Amino acid sequence: MIDKLIEKIQKTGAPIVVGLDPMMKFVPDHIKKTAFTQKGETLEGAAEAVWLYNKEIIDKTYDLIPAVKPQIAMYEQFGIPGLCAFKRTVAYCKEKGLVVIGDIKRGDIGSTSAAYAAAHLGKVQVGSSLCAGFDEDFVTVNPYLGSDGVQPFIDVCREEQKGIFVLVKTSNPSSGEFQDRMVSTGGITFSEQALYELVGMKVEEWGGQLMGRKGYSSVGAVVGATYPEQGKVLRKVMPHAFILVPGYGAQGASGKDLIHFFDENRLGAIVNSSRGIIAAYQNEKYSAFGAENFADASRQAVLDMIADIDQAFANAGR
Amino acid sequence: MIDKLIEKIQKTGAPIVVGLDPMMKFVPDHIKKTAFTQKGETLEGAAEAVWLYNKEIIDKTYDLIPAVKPQIAMYEQFGIPGLCAFKRTVAYCKEKGLVVIGDIKRGDIGSTSAAYAAAHLGKVQVGSSLCAGFDEDFVTVNPYLGSDGVQPFIDVCREEQKGIFVLVKTSNPSSGEFQDRMVSTGGITFSEQALYELVGMKVEEWGGQLMGRKGYSSVGAVVGATYPEQGKVLRKVMPHAFILVPGYGAQGASGKDLIHFFDENRLGAIVNSSRGIIAAYQNEKYSAFGAENFADASRQAVLDMIADIDQAFANAGR
Repeated sequence: MIDKLIEKIQKTGAPIVVGLDPMMKFVPDHIKKTAFTQKGETLEGAAEAVWLYNKEIIDKTYDLIPAVKPQIAMYEQFGIPGLCAFKRTVAYCKEKGLVVIGDIKRGDIGSTSAAYAAAHLGKVQVGSSLCAGFDEDFVTVNPYLGSDGVQPFIDVCREEQKGIFVLVKTSNPSSGEFQDRMVSTGGITFSEQALYELVGMKVEEWGGQLMGRKGYSSVGAVVGATYPEQGKVLRKVMPHAFILVPGYGAQGASGKDLIHFFDENRLGAIVNSSRGIIAAYQNEKYSAFGAENFADASRQAVLDMIADIDQAFANAGR
Repeated sequence: MIDKLIEKIQKTGAPIVVGLDPMMKFVPDHIKKTAFTQKGETLEGAAEAVWLYNKEIIDKTYDLIPAVKPQIAMYEQFGIPGLCAFKRTVAYCKEKGLVVIGDIKRGDIGSTSAAYAAAHLGKVQVGSSLCAGFDEDFVTVNPYLGSDGVQPFIDVCREEQKGIFVLVKTSNPSSGEFQDRMVSTGGITFSEQALYELVGMKVEEWGGQLMGRKGYSSVGAVVGATYPEQGKVLRKVMPHAFILVPGYGAQGASGKDLIHFFDENRLGAIVNSSRGIIAAYQNEKYSAFGAENFADASRQAVLDMIADIDQAFANAGR
């Protein structure tokens, strides 16, 4: 699956992913009105609003981008109808040829991780049938439980030609609380290694099982743009891991902060922007579009993000 | 919510929770046949089988136990129909007066954790309505992202009188890979403290925000029965945290391995058993019940588990 993602990035010239994280406050009033009129101010109404909002953004951006990353929590909050909108969004994006990264951050003991992997990347056996639950292309995985909580995802990826991105250094303000702690590496003395480095080393090790043809593994890593110093270290620690980089735009990072995540061929990373794109119309810069044309604002924000990263590559001589 | 759980434990005399983790291989053939005849060998059929199986176990055990812990992955693997069975199970258990611990192990950056907290413990605003998604009483939370990933759950718990159990030391074989690493505590020299202890200290700190009337907080911890030494340390590190203890039975621990999790009043911990109870009929010890009477086998396994823990208390003079 990493090879397919790389091909799509090369074809679009855009190492970016649009985060489909539809918080209700981003959804324009006219969409909410349509949805609530049809389905009421209910979970069904909210889910319909989310779907209509997503669809328009996808329709206006899918030709520019390689991938989307729906954050399942933003759907799960609307219960079963919300998860139906998640499933519908995943399926629609795949129809449009996009690679879908399910941002689910699951992770559990082995048998439970196997169930999550089946739910999101694989199939389950029901009697003599095989059925797929949500069927994303990649998912994000939480490593706190260790190797036996990650391996079931890798096993399903091998069978189904899918991939994962493991949380290594997250973009949020308190990510350092545990992730930045210096840890012992098993010897008598402590080495100068942070927990995120140790997790990064494991990602590189796990990735050996799923190497693609283009120098990268289908076991990637999540490293926040908001922590450039840690990012530089991790790029070296995980030479075969594609890095999914959240934190662009709304969380504060710009193109020039991201160059160190990439290799000489402009590969090795894919940068996520969520509200910076999907809620662009709420940003003063794009306010001329107006709420009715929110998806045109999103398209312009995608073009601007691509240009920003292109400029950063050019400035770095790549 | 912790006070309600404690009251239920005292009323039943059973510091145990039944893990409703319905893997398809546990569901008796006659149930599968009924479900598949009605709904086909589909996700809908699997979800119906899971629901019929759960309902019979709940009906035969609810008067003996304070709480259940459905593992959402086992439902999520069956997609939307599976999650409908999860929701139905949660609602039915609450109807029966049981405390429901949603074993969801979610955790993300702040705004995303807020969405998960709303989904599982709280309500979301849709227009002028407030709607609940899944509405469990407690959920399990993954701490890898740090305080700002946990705080939104605590905020919702305060508003809704609910609770969480934070993963501290998990029961799986490779849990030590990261959780047991010695970490620096911020000073120049390294102290002899493992990551799980540091997380445990944070749980105790977070718990100060949600203290109940009986000496425990609605911020609890997950500590595997399979690691008794770490359990002893953590009991001291987190004097106000109720401990949810997986790993009894199928994972190898018995009553005598658990005493150190409890205080002098037989409180402070609740022990989970999943397959040991829900699939008891597959265990040689209970095979006389037969698959048709699987839920009677589950009832007997609950009684035996209560007796095992009672005996351990008696032996320890409590």
